[in-house]
Amino acid sequence: MKAKIVITPKKAVLDPQGKTVQNALALMGYTGVGAVHVGKYLEIELTGADKDMASRQIAEACHKILSNPVIEDYRFEIE
Amino acid sequence: MKAKIVITPKKAVLDPQGKTVQNALALMGYTGVGAVHVGKYLEIELTGADKDMASRQIAEACHKILSNPVIEDYRFEIE
Repeated sequence: MKAKIVITPKKAVLDPQGKTVQNALALMGYTGVGAVHVGKYLEIELTGADKDMASRQIAEACHKILSNPVIEDYRFEIE
Repeated sequence: MKAKIVITPKKAVLDPQGKTVQNALALMGYTGVGAVHVGKYLEIELTGADKDMASRQIAEACHKILSNPVIEDYRFEIE
């Protein structure tokens, strides 16, 4: 199994990295680019077979270690 | 429209950040965790209406600015 996790800054939080990418794209001549949000992507290979258990563990790990829940949102899927 | 881009290190490239997360998870007592890959996630809001055009532009931007094609792979979808 594999967990795919996406961690993004919350909408209300300033995202200077996203703003920088947005400006860079505009300067490079890409028109029609609006807001850019930059986050993290994690792929975790899981050796267990119990999908529910894995899902609980990943949710806990996301909350406790992988993201900062004060300023970041996370979502994940197990495949 | 919105482009969702995932940039990951190529499999052959050393991923110290992923290895660190893997070790941290193991130390925190999460069993059954195999290899971890850490990449970037970008969400770009697009104001145009032409999906094919947007797709070409995003592919070019990924290749030229957003990723380092020597050591990173990217994939994206436009929704």
